[in-house]
Amino acid sequence: MSKTLSINTSLSPVYFDKYADNESIVVVIDVLRATSVISTAFHYGVKEIIPVQTLDQALEFKAKENHIVAAERNAMLIDGFDFGNSPFHYMNKDVQDKTLVFTTTNGTKALNMAINHQTITASFVNFDAVADYLIDKQQNIILFCAGWKGYFNLEDSIFAGKLAEILLQKGFATTDDSTLSSIYLHQKSDTDLFAFLNSSSHRNRLKTLNMEEDTKFCLQPDFQSDIVPILENKKLIKA
Amino acid sequence: MSKTLSINTSLSPVYFDKYADNESIVVVIDVLRATSVISTAFHYGVKEIIPVQTLDQALEFKAKENHIVAAERNAMLIDGFDFGNSPFHYMNKDVQDKTLVFTTTNGTKALNMAINHQTITASFVNFDAVADYLIDKQQNIILFCAGWKGYFNLEDSIFAGKLAEILLQKGFATTDDSTLSSIYLHQKSDTDLFAFLNSSSHRNRLKTLNMEEDTKFCLQPDFQSDIVPILENKKLIKA
Repeated sequence: MSKTLSINTSLSPVYFDKYADNESIVVVIDVLRATSVISTAFHYGVKEIIPVQTLDQALEFKAKENHIVAAERNAMLIDGFDFGNSPFHYMNKDVQDKTLVFTTTNGTKALNMAINHQTITASFVNFDAVADYLIDKQQNIILFCAGWKGYFNLEDSIFAGKLAEILLQKGFATTDDSTLSSIYLHQKSDTDLFAFLNSSSHRNRLKTLNMEEDTKFCLQPDFQSDIVPILENKKLIKA
Repeated sequence: MSKTLSINTSLSPVYFDKYADNESIVVVIDVLRATSVISTAFHYGVKEIIPVQTLDQALEFKAKENHIVAAERNAMLIDGFDFGNSPFHYMNKDVQDKTLVFTTTNGTKALNMAINHQTITASFVNFDAVADYLIDKQQNIILFCAGWKGYFNLEDSIFAGKLAEILLQKGFATTDDSTLSSIYLHQKSDTDLFAFLNSSSHRNRLKTLNMEEDTKFCLQPDFQSDIVPILENKKLIKA
């Protein structure tokens, strides 16, 4: 008989080291917006993505051929960078076959924490592909919610819950309260996630910044990408 | 016009320092079982409670007159101590007017993290009294879930959500995803908390140890205590 595969959920980066091991697949989740942007950029033809931690590290790539450099801090685009953290920035032909260098407030920080693990990125844009990938791999799973500056946030947990619910139906198991809680939050929000998140902190942050279209796309994307971005040699490539 | 009072929720000890300030009332929550035990012990006549961090610190009080010394680690009673972390241990006349020295895996750790704050303890045993106290005080509130060894747990968050829901009805406000999430979890569990927590990690831990009666009492106590335990000079006394 095969052993039971486990799901654990790190509700924000502060828990990641408690869950991390050398065997599990780590699924980095930053629904609003970094991992949605990553999926979108790959879907529109980006070749690879280098997640970096600082603006300085990102700027080092500025002059390199076939590189585009993107940065976001506190939900805003940064002067001097080609692109920001909106999926709509990447819906054009200029990104094709480029290397995207990318730094954001939360998502790329989480990616860097998981850089030495078997790590993929997930969003509603590539939800089905990620679920299929994980079911196919048959390894233990850590759902790693990027959160907001170390805090818990609703949208990443709800996403983790939606994914965990499917995996439980496919024979995975969990004894982890964070995973159970995420599933309950997903079930509570399932009829209309956009409306459910109306009072959430980050949706309000983006609302103030007139980024409602970003939020709508990230929560209810109008296409599904079949690409699963995976970390290899500190770069995200297509799995 | 009076300013709006805020509610924030630290879903486990790892977040507490992010939320802590010098103005808020901190509400320590360890439903299974430390803060339920604290409420029960006060209800049965304990004079004061000294929360300590280590077994050694607790043992120092062993020979002192009018002191009872209680300890729990990993949900179990510890040899050499008078009492453990079951509310039923305190439902007797021997505890009257005694000083209880108390160390547990999570609850007393959280209390010690909050020892220099305006801190009270809350459980389903003194739920109504705590709600009334907070409504009366009109200060910002941090709901501090003790969790399990630094991890999030369901029962403390659900309790925080139940309390937050009432406070929001009384004019408090929140923009905190942890608080919103706790309210949603409470709403999802409201019809039968005991059944809802059936798959939760700590309920299962206690089930294995035959502590189902403790769990039932802590989630659905058969009395309400009107005592709000408050930290003063590193001791819990009646507010």
